Amino acid sequence: MEFLKPLQTDLAVEARENIVEQTSAPISGLHVENDENDEDVTITRVTIDSDQAQQMVGKPKGIYVTVEAPGLRYKNTPLSAKVMNYVAQELAKLLHVSSDATILIVGLGNWNVTPDALGPRTIDKIVVTRHLDDLLSPELKGGVRRVCALAPGVLGLTGMETAEIIKGVVAEVKPQTVIAIDALAAASSSRVVTTIQLSTTGIHPGSGVGNKRFGLTEDSLGVPVIAIGVPTVVHASTIAMDTIHILQEHAAFARYFKSLETLSDQDQQKVIRQVLPDILGDMMVTPKEVDRMIDDIAVVVAGGINQALHPNIDYENIHMYLH
Amino acid sequence: MEFLKPLQTDLAVEARENIVEQTSAPISGLHVENDENDEDVTITRVTIDSDQAQQMVGKPKGIYVTVEAPGLRYKNTPLSAKVMNYVAQELAKLLHVSSDATILIVGLGNWNVTPDALGPRTIDKIVVTRHLDDLLSPELKGGVRRVCALAPGVLGLTGMETAEIIKGVVAEVKPQTVIAIDALAAASSSRVVTTIQLSTTGIHPGSGVGNKRFGLTEDSLGVPVIAIGVPTVVHASTIAMDTIHILQEHAAFARYFKSLETLSDQDQQKVIRQVLPDILGDMMVTPKEVDRMIDDIAVVVAGGINQALHPNIDYENIHMYLH
Amino acid sequence: MEFLKPLQTDLAVEARENIVEQTSAPISGLHVENDENDEDVTITRVTIDSDQAQQMVGKPKGIYVTVEAPGLRYKNTPLSAKVMNYVAQELAKLLHVSSDATILIVGLGNWNVTPDALGPRTIDKIVVTRHLDDLLSPELKGGVRRVCALAPGVLGLTGMETAEIIKGVVAEVKPQTVIAIDALAAASSSRVVTTIQLSTTGIHPGSGVGNKRFGLTEDSLGVPVIAIGVPTVVHASTIAMDTIHILQEHAAFARYFKSLETLSDQDQQKVIRQVLPDILGDMMVTPKEVDRMIDDIAVVVAGGINQALHPNIDYENIHMYLH
Amino acid sequence: MEFLKPLQTDLAVEARENIVEQTSAPISGLHVENDENDEDVTITRVTIDSDQAQQMVGKPKGIYVTVEAPGLRYKNTPLSAKVMNYVAQELAKLLHVSSDATILIVGLGNWNVTPDALGPRTIDKIVVTRHLDDLLSPELKGGVRRVCALAPGVLGLTGMETAEIIKGVVAEVKPQTVIAIDALAAASSSRVVTTIQLSTTGIHPGSGVGNKRFGLTEDSLGVPVIAIGVPTVVHASTIAMDTIHILQEHAAFARYFKSLETLSDQDQQKVIRQVLPDILGDMMVTPKEVDRMIDDIAVVVAGGINQALHPNIDYENIHMYLH
Repeated sequence: MEFLKPLQTDLAVEARENIVEQTSAPISGLHVENDENDEDVTITRVTIDSDQAQQMVGKPKGIYVTVEAPGLRYKNTPLSAKVMNYVAQELAKLLHVSSDATILIVGLGNWNVTPDALGPRTIDKIVVTRHLDDLLSPELKGGVRRVCALAPGVLGLTGMETAEIIKGVVAEVKPQTVIAIDALAAASSSRVVTTIQLSTTGIHPGSGVGNKRFGLTEDSLGVPVIAIGVPTVVHASTIAMDTIHILQEHAAFARYFKSLETLSDQDQQKVIRQVLPDILGDMMVTPKEVDRMIDDIAVVVAGGINQALHPNIDYENIHMYLH
Repeated sequence: MEFLKPLQTDLAVEARENIVEQTSAPISGLHVENDENDEDVTITRVTIDSDQAQQMVGKPKGIYVTVEAPGLRYKNTPLSAKVMNYVAQELAKLLHVSSDATILIVGLGNWNVTPDALGPRTIDKIVVTRHLDDLLSPELKGGVRRVCALAPGVLGLTGMETAEIIKGVVAEVKPQTVIAIDALAAASSSRVVTTIQLSTTGIHPGSGVGNKRFGLTEDSLGVPVIAIGVPTVVHASTIAMDTIHILQEHAAFARYFKSLETLSDQDQQKVIRQVLPDILGDMMVTPKEVDRMIDDIAVVVAGGINQALHPNIDYENIHMYLH
Repeated sequence: MEFLKPLQTDLAVEARENIVEQTSAPISGLHVENDENDEDVTITRVTIDSDQAQQMVGKPKGIYVTVEAPGLRYKNTPLSAKVMNYVAQELAKLLHVSSDATILIVGLGNWNVTPDALGPRTIDKIVVTRHLDDLLSPELKGGVRRVCALAPGVLGLTGMETAEIIKGVVAEVKPQTVIAIDALAAASSSRVVTTIQLSTTGIHPGSGVGNKRFGLTEDSLGVPVIAIGVPTVVHASTIAMDTIHILQEHAAFARYFKSLETLSDQDQQKVIRQVLPDILGDMMVTPKEVDRMIDDIAVVVAGGINQALHPNIDYENIHMYLH
Repeated sequence: MEFLKPLQTDLAVEARENIVEQTSAPISGLHVENDENDEDVTITRVTIDSDQAQQMVGKPKGIYVTVEAPGLRYKNTPLSAKVMNYVAQELAKLLHVSSDATILIVGLGNWNVTPDALGPRTIDKIVVTRHLDDLLSPELKGGVRRVCALAPGVLGLTGMETAEIIKGVVAEVKPQTVIAIDALAAASSSRVVTTIQLSTTGIHPGSGVGNKRFGLTEDSLGVPVIAIGVPTVVHASTIAMDTIHILQEHAAFARYFKSLETLSDQDQQKVIRQVLPDILGDMMVTPKEVDRMIDDIAVVVAGGINQALHPNIDYENIHMYLH
């Protein structure tokens, strides 16, 4: 197997595109299904179920569903509602829980760092119901899952790994499934705040905008973990790498860059590794309006979760169901 | 023993004053010590160690230390620094932990309700160190306690009792002691945001600005719980009750209120119970500048805790101790 | 004319009710019209157009429209949308401006004091269009008024009277009308965050949650000023006064309070004036969930304004109209 | 005169360095003075007083003082206090106002976009005094300037140019000088949130993190305008350009890039212009902890201004001077 260029991204769909661009050989255990019936929204389902596919794509085995809607960059309520529905449908397919299950929603990330605040801001908008058991009217009892939610904060704020806190809470609250929400890094700026990824693999160390040292997975927590993520930053390395690609590919510069065509991947990586630490330090690349955009997409993610977990409720008026 | 009028307050010092005003009989098991060496700050230590005292004062057995500084209402950095030192000293006396103990600080309350946000805002300012173990230079290792901190949010936001979350985290993180910070209700507006109460009794159901259904105590968590609280609201009943008192006591109105002198406590309570639900519903009485005041006092509380837990560290420059 | 008890309230509808309760004599120049076709919403239009009415009600001559919907206390999107429409309709009736007028919306109040933050938070949600002139497509040009908006902050934050700042901006921007949004104080807690008052009289000194020293009126600015306000606090005096009323009126206490029936208004005022400064200082009485409630009602107020000013636009998608 | 590569930066010190690197010829009318007596802080004063210097450096004629302290990236109170003093001293030298002058401080930028929020957050920390005139005790009257402050918000939020609003307020309030605070873009990430620039030139169109269409200058406002800025973002073009430089300069890649040495400036610009719009769209490059960093530096900037304007006051305790 030839050596393929890796790509720094938390999106399986980008990691897979990158591999496919570099090899024409079929990869066993890597399945892709596209759903483009809606002109505003593309749904892609990537399944990784072999060791080879896992290694080549660089993502753990599991199902990765991406709901992409470039229009989400602009405030557009009808589109948001539509994407919310798709997220609810896709989440419902990945969830295998009874109609009275307890579900714990965890919002990862740091509320003080805007592009890392997707998790906490989504938690804010989750309709929690676990504490209402005794208040719900009989006709609702069967149709409402017992939902609880927590945004514990990051290691630097709590002194505790998120995994430690959640492990403790899971032991006490005993949910059937955990849903973990996190801000991601993408390779392409066009996917920032326009793409929602759902996966059955949980959260893995090193992923997301913050630096995780421990994951939140079925292995570590003892219950299935569904991860929902939205890219809010692009890797700065993307800019450096794309600069090199433009130099290599563009006809207008051909006379200078003949030799660049043969620049080896290792040398290219060396450039990237040299450029970034010096220039960028702890910098991130993010949309100017990231604050508003994250608020908007948090509504979509939370709405999708609310709808998938309690399909029969009119959430806006949930207070009317309480007695 | 005669029936004494209870008082709605979370401050032991107020509950005790109320009793003392009403009876001249000594109460066994109720000890009070005043420290008024500083003209700007009064420290009062109330100890309740008999069943009778507990019942009369209406607070569980334990030590209650109050640090009062009326000047805290105004931004006044030297006074804040002085109060911070007193809080650190008093907290150090109540803490019985080894120099390398793990301590969990819990910020109770709802960050969306300003007068209930003392806990979460204080947590923001706590210097957490538990995750730095491997980063601390050898000379520091011995002088820094392993501090971690969490503001879990309230039942209505999480669907979980704070007590459940903390119980799970305590089981995982195994602290030697828990320190719980909460916003309180006082009877007198003059104590709002000017008084800090430390106690060895933990947090009890029904106390604080939010409505707790379960406490955080040594009984429920299995480790000692020190509570630190600051009143941020006054009970609306205070206003109604004080209106009656004025009517009763003031000479100018004597001709109308002769009969009021004999108004029984039960009837007085009836007035209060009738007035409040109708007029006030879910209203609270709080200072206009509560937002700024809570930020200011959170610095004092967090500073006192930081100093008590790591007496040898210059916190502002803690990054210089890391390698 | 007999002496009638004044009432501390910014709502004309409350001030009028108070007068009507106390006298059966008709007041010339005071007109009231109720619109109760909607069971969830009551609209009341009070017109004051004589000096006598102005003096008795204690509000300047003009039209005061109140849209009341007790259900607004709870999150209820369909009701919010309905109220938004009523606000838009009532505002449209009070506005006398051409279809291409420049309108300046001013949000009064202090964003650091939650119950005073209605103005700034509403401004956040206003669709401003004045700067888009060159960007609007031709078909829109006629249907969009030139709207601009400012939340200047309060005297204590800026060192300038709001009236000074707005006067300067009006001179520069030359709007045809100013709409000023402010948080109000009500006498009854049931009206807090459930009532929206629109009036043709502008903002007067001493009104609102903050303490204004100068008003924003047609006299001071040279252009008509429509005020839109929502009560977010109740006067603490209400609690004291209602305590006295309960004492006076309630049968169960009759034996004590015979004499109270003859308590003169002056003496009652004296009680209020004595009780409040001592007990309450700078306290305010406000709903516990005021933060969320103000966010919700700001959406209703801003939505009503947006709709009244640009009746033909679908606001959510305004970006699609830009080229 | 040869063609020199321009540099996208709001810092005169960077623009000048860039020119000096490219030419050894002395530039008449460009003066530089360094003050490096403090090992933690470097102060550089660039004076541009000829048309040639203005054109080459690409900044208007005037004085530009830069206070640089790389340690400001970390929370470090003693260093912050020291930098605050330097800012106060340098500002005092640039201000030519009487001891009872009225000064208007303007905070430019968008509080919803963290890296653009320096201005509004600094305004929050300015001690305003203009409204206290009657409250100040006689001994203070002479030592306190009449300071007022405004953060009007950006065009997209208000529908008005900042310049229009400020022009109106200046006409009403008649300050002797305006001080305008703005977030800047730097070429080098090492200067982000570690450098404070003061200049006598006011704010010019196109500068800063937001896109200004009109400047705030003595020409437009009729009174001197001192600008104070702090870089909070780096131009994304920097990353692309530095990637090319590394390719050109680094020995290890020499065999590929022989020809790159002769890459013309125009072609290099072409690369930059091609890379950026496609990849970056509306992205910005900013530190991960920009939120905390801006809060910290806003304290330094506001503290420096407060101290320069009222040199004899102890600000923390200013309430004690009021009667």
